[in-house]
Amino acid sequence: MRAPAAVGMRLEEVDTPALIVDLDAFERNFCRMMAAVAGRGVRVRAHAKTHKCPEIARLQVAAGAVGVCCQKVSEAEAMVEGGIGDVLVSNEVVGAAKLARLAALARRARIGVCVDDARNVRELDAACGAAGVKLDAYVEVDVGARRCGVPAGEPAAALAREVARSANLRFAGLQAYHGAAQHVRAMAERRAQIARAVEAAQASRRAIEAEGIACPVVTGAGSGSFMFEIESGVYNEIQPGSYVFMDADYARNEWDDPLPRFEHALFVLATVMSRPVPERAVVDAGLKALSVDSGLPLVWERPGFVYARASDEHGVIDIASGTAPPELGDKLLLVPGHCDPTVNLYDWYVCVRAGRVEALWPIAARGAIY
Amino acid sequence: MRAPAAVGMRLEEVDTPALIVDLDAFERNFCRMMAAVAGRGVRVRAHAKTHKCPEIARLQVAAGAVGVCCQKVSEAEAMVEGGIGDVLVSNEVVGAAKLARLAALARRARIGVCVDDARNVRELDAACGAAGVKLDAYVEVDVGARRCGVPAGEPAAALAREVARSANLRFAGLQAYHGAAQHVRAMAERRAQIARAVEAAQASRRAIEAEGIACPVVTGAGSGSFMFEIESGVYNEIQPGSYVFMDADYARNEWDDPLPRFEHALFVLATVMSRPVPERAVVDAGLKALSVDSGLPLVWERPGFVYARASDEHGVIDIASGTAPPELGDKLLLVPGHCDPTVNLYDWYVCVRAGRVEALWPIAARGAIY
Repeated sequence: MRAPAAVGMRLEEVDTPALIVDLDAFERNFCRMMAAVAGRGVRVRAHAKTHKCPEIARLQVAAGAVGVCCQKVSEAEAMVEGGIGDVLVSNEVVGAAKLARLAALARRARIGVCVDDARNVRELDAACGAAGVKLDAYVEVDVGARRCGVPAGEPAAALAREVARSANLRFAGLQAYHGAAQHVRAMAERRAQIARAVEAAQASRRAIEAEGIACPVVTGAGSGSFMFEIESGVYNEIQPGSYVFMDADYARNEWDDPLPRFEHALFVLATVMSRPVPERAVVDAGLKALSVDSGLPLVWERPGFVYARASDEHGVIDIASGTAPPELGDKLLLVPGHCDPTVNLYDWYVCVRAGRVEALWPIAARGAIY
Repeated sequence: MRAPAAVGMRLEEVDTPALIVDLDAFERNFCRMMAAVAGRGVRVRAHAKTHKCPEIARLQVAAGAVGVCCQKVSEAEAMVEGGIGDVLVSNEVVGAAKLARLAALARRARIGVCVDDARNVRELDAACGAAGVKLDAYVEVDVGARRCGVPAGEPAAALAREVARSANLRFAGLQAYHGAAQHVRAMAERRAQIARAVEAAQASRRAIEAEGIACPVVTGAGSGSFMFEIESGVYNEIQPGSYVFMDADYARNEWDDPLPRFEHALFVLATVMSRPVPERAVVDAGLKALSVDSGLPLVWERPGFVYARASDEHGVIDIASGTAPPELGDKLLLVPGHCDPTVNLYDWYVCVRAGRVEALWPIAARGAIY
């Protein structure tokens, strides 16, 4: 798919819908993250599921990240292809074909993966043996999200034993990510949920160490909670992703110390394509241009404009009475409700500074869901 | 993005998540549509926004469709490139760059487009003049969806006059599509809403004809209502799209004569990647593999399995008590809640008959939202 812009264009000239990165805000988000964690003794392993873009991953590594996380083997392949040397697939990988691809990737980079099932550990071990590689395996513990992961404590230790006796796997530690807590609105309740996740991770690490197995890494934590995990002293690696872009849903969280407040740096540029009546305008960005799973997008810096309804290719903007309606052809910036699945709809980031297109970054892992 | 399968593979061998077309059901849906409209004196202009695939568009034309509709210029470009000779962009096209691309396309195929604004008509006319082409222009009337379109009656006639006096535009008729009515559950209420749309279309056509302007085509109607528009005698072209696939949300409609009942022919194949507790399994298809704007997907032919929650890369399946849980690695077919934006997430259709992959069709207009 061709890019909707060329370097040097003014923002208003960019074809729409287009995915826009405000480079100044994006860089400030980077700095805020690195400043927040500086001197805290934790590694940042930035989550590439958010951006799916090796250019951004390389910037994260250059800024101090140890490497990236991915959720899918194909996403990891795109990152290794893009020059990232240390990738954790922070997810289970199931099936012979995928395991063989994962093992092959370990010839080219340091690769980690999560496990929550003993048979899967044996199949992973066999795939690594066949490929002649060793992998870092992390036992995933369900620390509250009720998704994947073994229960905390003894079940985690039992699976760590299974990993430790595998010829081709290194037991690397615990994956202890509480995804569901990231969007809990109130700081106090989010902190309380993470406190329970920390207890579960701590109990699991103790059970593993009681077996005489070292547990070098406890990894997890997202953009909505990472300072809580850091303050616990139990986690020594964090996996934030959304902080680079900050979507409308994350912005509905209560933000306060010790969490830095990130800025919106990702937008969808849309064109007003119809204004049939004064109280309604229609833009060219609907469900195929914006993921609405976490709410409709917000109209940026246009008071009185509300994105009220989405259909496949249209967004209906309600115009408050007394507000001047837009002209046909006007362009609006929209803040996506949820950045990750919105990014997955696009092939290019149009990177803008001071109103001009400064760079075009391919979203190399767009559609890399295998 | 590479294809997740090869021709000849068994369905169980297909990599996941994958977008599956059940060819037998898909062909039966085709036949039901053509049987329903046979002898009714209406043209079928199948909507390509649903499938975004020239292979399917060519089958639709071979089965008797006059051509296709698209919603975007880039989608129309993909269809013309794929050999479709008659394309209506059933939407407004705004901005000099897009209008120039649309006009350029008219050198290669018969192209129509919708208008709802006089200035846009003049810009469209100028773009056609610059390209040395003529286009079919349809006045879009808001027949109840409260999205784009001029009000019915005199405003439609005023815009038709504007088109009729444009040097490079042919006034082709009315776009009178009531999208919002398609998913009204009760047949009687859906029929009543379409009756009001028919009145609006009829009033607009009469106002235009009263000006001495011929109105050759009244086009519109989707998979949830098209027999009502046909029975009105006012519409002589219909634009159904979803009938080829039939998603979970459409299936929640009440279906009865005169509307044929279509079958689910589109599925997402997913793998069970975790089963941490007997009452929960996790599949590898979440928000990046399925659009959830119209509800979560349904698990196909696995009683007791309910797709209960989606996150970016995961779907949580609740397993009813007393139901045997799936094995790790089991593959499940999911019926998407909404087919159009789900299709837009994939690069390939994996076409299956009798449990074997028979064809791979590229989704050439995936991401063609410009």
